[in-house]
Amino acid sequence: MSESFRLTILGCTAATPTSTSHTSSQWLQAGNNHFLLDCAEGTQMQIRKMKLPLMKINHIFISHLHGDHYLGLPGLIFSYHLLGRTKDLHVYSPKGLKEVIDIQHEIANVKTRFNIIFHEVNYGGQKLFENNSVEVEAIKMEHSIPCFGFLIKEKTKERNIIKACIDKYKIGIDKIADIKKGADFLCDDGTLIPNSEITKEPPKPRSYAFCSDTLYTESFINQVKNVDLLYHEATFLQDKANIAKEKTHATAMEAAKVAKKANAGQLLIGHYSARYDDINEFLNEAKSFFQNTILAKEGITIDI
Amino acid sequence: MSESFRLTILGCTAATPTSTSHTSSQWLQAGNNHFLLDCAEGTQMQIRKMKLPLMKINHIFISHLHGDHYLGLPGLIFSYHLLGRTKDLHVYSPKGLKEVIDIQHEIANVKTRFNIIFHEVNYGGQKLFENNSVEVEAIKMEHSIPCFGFLIKEKTKERNIIKACIDKYKIGIDKIADIKKGADFLCDDGTLIPNSEITKEPPKPRSYAFCSDTLYTESFINQVKNVDLLYHEATFLQDKANIAKEKTHATAMEAAKVAKKANAGQLLIGHYSARYDDINEFLNEAKSFFQNTILAKEGITIDI
Repeated sequence: MSESFRLTILGCTAATPTSTSHTSSQWLQAGNNHFLLDCAEGTQMQIRKMKLPLMKINHIFISHLHGDHYLGLPGLIFSYHLLGRTKDLHVYSPKGLKEVIDIQHEIANVKTRFNIIFHEVNYGGQKLFENNSVEVEAIKMEHSIPCFGFLIKEKTKERNIIKACIDKYKIGIDKIADIKKGADFLCDDGTLIPNSEITKEPPKPRSYAFCSDTLYTESFINQVKNVDLLYHEATFLQDKANIAKEKTHATAMEAAKVAKKANAGQLLIGHYSARYDDINEFLNEAKSFFQNTILAKEGITIDI
Repeated sequence: MSESFRLTILGCTAATPTSTSHTSSQWLQAGNNHFLLDCAEGTQMQIRKMKLPLMKINHIFISHLHGDHYLGLPGLIFSYHLLGRTKDLHVYSPKGLKEVIDIQHEIANVKTRFNIIFHEVNYGGQKLFENNSVEVEAIKMEHSIPCFGFLIKEKTKERNIIKACIDKYKIGIDKIADIKKGADFLCDDGTLIPNSEITKEPPKPRSYAFCSDTLYTESFINQVKNVDLLYHEATFLQDKANIAKEKTHATAMEAAKVAKKANAGQLLIGHYSARYDDINEFLNEAKSFFQNTILAKEGITIDI
């Protein structure tokens, strides 16, 4: 069974929260990695409500510094402090966030027992994080202030040795590492067993692109080509395409166009304007152009 | 019927919010005045959930700059901006809050269409606000950083003229204002009607003291003497009196002692530490010393 690559929507409404809906925040679990993508007001409560492992977040990616995308971060950091966190916390965002957090800690006379390492996001394609299983890079959005999406990609895993073959060909433990990397196996009697006969393909690496906030642009399509799941903001419908453009946001149809041109496996839309009563209108508009579309809704999880 | 003097608890837990409980925030309606006392993360959602008139808040009083007492303010201000507010917003707090809000607006490239007027709270007894019906003054708390409670007092209203007397004594409209202030009335035939015969006592002015966060102190007892409702933080029980002192907080018993010494009409306690599973323990401890005690709980309203 492959590892989890699972997205949970913590909040997906635009601009102002309501009594029942939170603004931008998502949780991505990629194996043992837990990433927070945006952190709007109330995110820490949403995390608790959805029983996600609060203390396992070590990397927080903030798309941009409009309030509806980061105002839950100061409270989350205060809570980590009060809960006795000692592990480093990495925060990735456009320039400016460190100053906000620093001044809040100064006036509260708080010195956290853990390091907060701020990473400035500056350009599309910038490699932000990498370990042995996953990597994250920035995607440049077109918005009214500096703004970046995030592309999270699993790395290709090693090939899986078929267990029965180990006995059958008497494969020594010292050969396993090479075989997992693709080496053939030479038996004691001189027979060469091709790698393809003793191993299975590893699971296909999965990928997720989080693209919010942005107006319609084709500038990052090559970067997200063939992504398994594409989240693209859809603040408006086509009936307000002009307002969308003016406010540097996209429509559901435009999100669908990006998904189609990028050959995404599936499109997830969200960041709905409160101007619309029925979010199914977003789904209908997007589906007319890109059939495999789903709506972001608070609390849903999507296994990628 | 007298005007509303009504308190609504938006949040009353200490330190970190949970999936079901918010940190410090209260709404006080005093006639046409709507005041916010502290504004923790999620306050704007709580206001909407409780269907309080969000746009009627013009004065926000922040006790101190620990995160659990003000982190909902930046989001509330962003929402006011997005909802098109134009009316001035007055914010009262210890020094430092203006810098936090300013830097957040700078990085978001936001210029609100309304003025935010920051008032620095510096000493106990400082008059913060006054109009023709109500006044608010600061109460000095003893906490780890500069911290102030708030005393909200109705002003004494004018005496009420008994309507039947206007006809009976043929009281001219030009005399009404003086009579309401306490003047007697001289009839055309020379008879002097004493004020007490033609007017009724106005309702007794009501008062509310919001005292959080503080360790036990008698320093402000004279200021809140005979207050109708006293909110006093009770983060711990007596079993943890030492921890309370160390963390500059109070116990339920200490809150009750203050209420008793101040001769408060009623005591309201809150700001419970998450260390305790059953908040009724706070009630029992306080009641053993001051019988007329109630527990702050999210969503309750108290008519003072």
